[in-house]
Amino acid sequence: MSNYTVIFQPVNRQIQVKPGTTLLEAAHQAGIHINASCGGAGVCGKCRVKVESGKTTGGKSEKLSAADYDNGIRLACATQVEGDVSLRLLDESGLLEGGLALDVPRRHRALLHYFDIEELRRQGIFVPPVEKLFLELPRPAATDNMADAGRIVLGLKNQYDERRLIISLAVMRKIRRILREQDFKVTVTLARPVHEQGKTHLVNIQPGNWIDRNFGLAIDIGTTTIWGQLMDLRSGRILARAGDYNGQISYGEDVINRIIQAEKPRGLELMQELVAATINKVIDAMLTEAAINRDEIDSVTLAGNTTMTHLFLGLEPNNIRRAPYVPVSTFFPPIRATDLGLQLSQHAIALLYPSISSYVGGDIVAGVMGSGMYRTDKLTLFVDIGTNAEIVIGSREWLVCAACSAGPAFEGGGISHGMRAASGAISDCSLHPKSFEPMLTTIDHKPPIGICGSGLLIIVAALFERGLLDQRGKFVRERETPRIREGKSGYEFVLVRRDEAGIDQDIVLNEVDIQNFIRAKAAIFAGVKTLIEEVGLEVSDIEQIILAGAFGSFIDLDSAMTVGLLPEVDPAKILYVGNGSLMGAGMSELSNHIRRDVVAVVQRMTSFELSEVNNFKDQYVASLFLPHTDRSIFPEVSKRLNKSREISA
Amino acid sequence: MSNYTVIFQPVNRQIQVKPGTTLLEAAHQAGIHINASCGGAGVCGKCRVKVESGKTTGGKSEKLSAADYDNGIRLACATQVEGDVSLRLLDESGLLEGGLALDVPRRHRALLHYFDIEELRRQGIFVPPVEKLFLELPRPAATDNMADAGRIVLGLKNQYDERRLIISLAVMRKIRRILREQDFKVTVTLARPVHEQGKTHLVNIQPGNWIDRNFGLAIDIGTTTIWGQLMDLRSGRILARAGDYNGQISYGEDVINRIIQAEKPRGLELMQELVAATINKVIDAMLTEAAINRDEIDSVTLAGNTTMTHLFLGLEPNNIRRAPYVPVSTFFPPIRATDLGLQLSQHAIALLYPSISSYVGGDIVAGVMGSGMYRTDKLTLFVDIGTNAEIVIGSREWLVCAACSAGPAFEGGGISHGMRAASGAISDCSLHPKSFEPMLTTIDHKPPIGICGSGLLIIVAALFERGLLDQRGKFVRERETPRIREGKSGYEFVLVRRDEAGIDQDIVLNEVDIQNFIRAKAAIFAGVKTLIEEVGLEVSDIEQIILAGAFGSFIDLDSAMTVGLLPEVDPAKILYVGNGSLMGAGMSELSNHIRRDVVAVVQRMTSFELSEVNNFKDQYVASLFLPHTDRSIFPEVSKRLNKSREISA
Repeated sequence: MSNYTVIFQPVNRQIQVKPGTTLLEAAHQAGIHINASCGGAGVCGKCRVKVESGKTTGGKSEKLSAADYDNGIRLACATQVEGDVSLRLLDESGLLEGGLALDVPRRHRALLHYFDIEELRRQGIFVPPVEKLFLELPRPAATDNMADAGRIVLGLKNQYDERRLIISLAVMRKIRRILREQDFKVTVTLARPVHEQGKTHLVNIQPGNWIDRNFGLAIDIGTTTIWGQLMDLRSGRILARAGDYNGQISYGEDVINRIIQAEKPRGLELMQELVAATINKVIDAMLTEAAINRDEIDSVTLAGNTTMTHLFLGLEPNNIRRAPYVPVSTFFPPIRATDLGLQLSQHAIALLYPSISSYVGGDIVAGVMGSGMYRTDKLTLFVDIGTNAEIVIGSREWLVCAACSAGPAFEGGGISHGMRAASGAISDCSLHPKSFEPMLTTIDHKPPIGICGSGLLIIVAALFERGLLDQRGKFVRERETPRIREGKSGYEFVLVRRDEAGIDQDIVLNEVDIQNFIRAKAAIFAGVKTLIEEVGLEVSDIEQIILAGAFGSFIDLDSAMTVGLLPEVDPAKILYVGNGSLMGAGMSELSNHIRRDVVAVVQRMTSFELSEVNNFKDQYVASLFLPHTDRSIFPEVSKRLNKSREISA
Repeated sequence: MSNYTVIFQPVNRQIQVKPGTTLLEAAHQAGIHINASCGGAGVCGKCRVKVESGKTTGGKSEKLSAADYDNGIRLACATQVEGDVSLRLLDESGLLEGGLALDVPRRHRALLHYFDIEELRRQGIFVPPVEKLFLELPRPAATDNMADAGRIVLGLKNQYDERRLIISLAVMRKIRRILREQDFKVTVTLARPVHEQGKTHLVNIQPGNWIDRNFGLAIDIGTTTIWGQLMDLRSGRILARAGDYNGQISYGEDVINRIIQAEKPRGLELMQELVAATINKVIDAMLTEAAINRDEIDSVTLAGNTTMTHLFLGLEPNNIRRAPYVPVSTFFPPIRATDLGLQLSQHAIALLYPSISSYVGGDIVAGVMGSGMYRTDKLTLFVDIGTNAEIVIGSREWLVCAACSAGPAFEGGGISHGMRAASGAISDCSLHPKSFEPMLTTIDHKPPIGICGSGLLIIVAALFERGLLDQRGKFVRERETPRIREGKSGYEFVLVRRDEAGIDQDIVLNEVDIQNFIRAKAAIFAGVKTLIEEVGLEVSDIEQIILAGAFGSFIDLDSAMTVGLLPEVDPAKILYVGNGSLMGAGMSELSNHIRRDVVAVVQRMTSFELSEVNNFKDQYVASLFLPHTDRSIFPEVSKRLNKSREISA
């Protein structure tokens, strides 16, 4: 379906939108503010516009008289674009006065960085760790009665120049029969060594030619969700994807609670079985989708945080949650998949991404590998924002990393009306520059019931930009607006009034919430600043940012810089890698070079325990401001702030 | 106990013997013939001598009058030496006439070649493949919160310069607890790689210091018997030995019948379980004897013929018994001992000696390694004589090998009165140079019931030396002696008359028996001659012979050369290594260099399929003579024959 053009009068601004986009969304994208408190649920009745021509659907409401409707008046939040549309903004609250409605900032989200199989090919590193080769061998004769295994080894040497092979017992046990099943024509599966000096393992043998059936799995073991992808190792294509909630979740939402469970009698075995069972479910779903037999899976790469990796391997995680936070191991040997309870063939080998420390895990290492950060010349900041934010800084030359405890603010925790990014969560917001009336967007256009992390970020940035918050995150008492009032927890901003909300109370953001948010962003920024200064550089030297994790895709980059969560970088140089852990696991399935490189990358990655760096505490205190005590490190933000403060003064 | 001196009169010959030696044995050792048909059982009454002084016991018999006994007359075969003795030979059958009784040849048995741990030390190759090291590690701290595994790896690097380590999952699972059990003082068990480029595996961890408890097993998987030794890998000492019948034996005595069993439904699993059960019994016996816990066994090396190795590993042996005799494999990867049904700890690794071909197995390779043949400068013939004789020829520079089917003659098979080397078997024999009356020795001095392999060899040689057999192995009809007669299967020599035997018939050796014997020795000699000529040398170039296998220790070397079984070599240069397979397995437990070298040795060992060598058939036909068609290759034998023929003419 092609896009439609929406023209906004009287300002004569136009924009291309997808069919079904609401007029409110279109206005937001066009940078036009329309008051709207109910998040697009058609409840507040404030977002009235007049459709002058073009096809739309919806837009009826009890807030709208029949006469108005006949006259082309619609609620923008409830009207979908179904053709080229021309509409007129109704200047009901003096919005258009002086063009003030026209400064809704455009949202800049990070560019999605795709997994690029062609790039692997170009670089010559598309060398799957598991390969199938077809052999036509001479039949044994009186003058040539070499052993079956030796015959295969010689054939591989003569036909493919393969050397340094080791044949597993499982293969030896079936080699005689299978060689003779199709007259000494066989397909052998070779598993490449991670290290160049290692041996190639001959892990499977099949009668006839099967070289076009060679499959591998990549699994991201998330604390909440486990994701997998099934890959054709010959073409590099992803044949199926699946995800499911980690079966451990009923024993606690975070890693600390999982560790506590694992410390109980038989708890570790239980945690291991639960995560293995979920992985098996995910694998089953993918095998069914792609119509592939489980015996055809020759390889699986998994990545997870350090606790998830420990629980999956059955390693005691006890000291991960106790100072000085010592994991059992950060490197893991190749392991038979069946030894871990995975329902795969005896010959399938599981490879686990190495971790860096208790709180910088294999998921982050996988992200660094999958995003190509370890090969870039640009000084890059990689950050995965969650309750624990993991930070990696560096380039192909060096890498430093740390974890910082941001707290749950970005996931809605510790915020009075905070919530996860679910239906009814306020996910975007613009404030009228004079009246400070909000234009809210909610997920699924449901009446607002709370604020999700990405919405919180934008709201705090908007309040600060409009001059309603001072640098310390306190409401500016002099600002007289009915939306700011004194509540139970100090001053608060009323985002949604009870009658427009999906809950039975006003939705507000108070100063305690804002302090929690600031502490979260300060922890991350202070981590970044501490790390980069530890290597003798400045945050302004950062040339590129890579965001990973679910939150990353929703972050408005300008807001993130306005509040001082991310250092100031051209938004075009901020990439989003999505599930970096799954991406890295998948790339390891397709490139044995990456499996090799990861060892060197991990070994040269210097891990900092921020609590042990003297400077960190000072950095943290200096970051407890919007955007920072030192405005000079946010020059562009300062300019923008000055401009918007002027308008809203 | 010190030895006693026995003096024989009137010939004034004396000899040192052990207490309890019979006078007949003493005469035999002194090279003095005394007629004796009953093998030392006191039945025939022929071996009368007069004890003139000294202490003896026994010697009474119903064949001896009380007067004779009082007069000092004794049956030599039933009288034990218990002090220095002087005795007089009674020239009852003209034996002493012309000194004829004085040419009983001294038996030359091969010198036992011991396993020499000190030699390994001197050569600097006493490097057990499994080593234990004690570590005192620093406790984790806020400024040093490296992972537990990394702490051990760093400790090993700093304290012992150990590098390239890999830690198994089983160890990782207990590492956290064990490290903290004795304040970060631990003993780690390292398994060295077979290949220098490989990684060292950290296979076990124990709290505290256990470096003096490091044990390994060596196992010889024989078709009939399984032998084991338990070794202290630190001192090299053998702490226990045990043996038991291979549990497969009720399914057939030879490898062919075992293969037939394995081809039946579930037969291979059954054969595998039976041999594993026997090995477990042998291991249990040794652990009990040495009072060692089974978890303290870190390594086991096993050697067996190709069929036994296949059955133990569960590899289909089907094509071993079918032309062109193709085994599944000749090289075997390291395998978890528990995967093979061995009741050892999860971390114990089983290493199997590689084979050369279907009929030159890991037992022979182990013998070549254990005897040091692969390191010698001397051109050496290694031969293990049994139903299948395996031959290896060469030195440190090159090695060639072959198996030849000798048939069961050396084990008593296909011989009218043949038997295994058990009580009552005739094991030695001398013939009176004129009367051809025999002087027989039986095992355990029991009345004779048959002829064992080593006895057969001596008897055929004696008949040939005395001129009773011609070069083709036929009795010389002109020789008139009551001991040669025409029987059911042609001419025969009566060794024991019914009334002197332990069975109810005469014990004879006929021409068919002798032909079977000649075919057996011809197959082996033709194999040796073919092999050595294939590499452009002559049998006379052989400088040293190493005998392996049970039969080897009983072979009278002169007789073996007289009949043309072994090439002519100074008997002092013939070594016997006993169970070469067990010896080689044991040395692999003590020297990782030998584990490495074996791969190179096997790869440079050229295997010949004798049936495919044109020359072999001619060589075989030429060898169907005593000692050979071509007398010139037995110059010393020819001289000896001429001399004894002269006496007996």
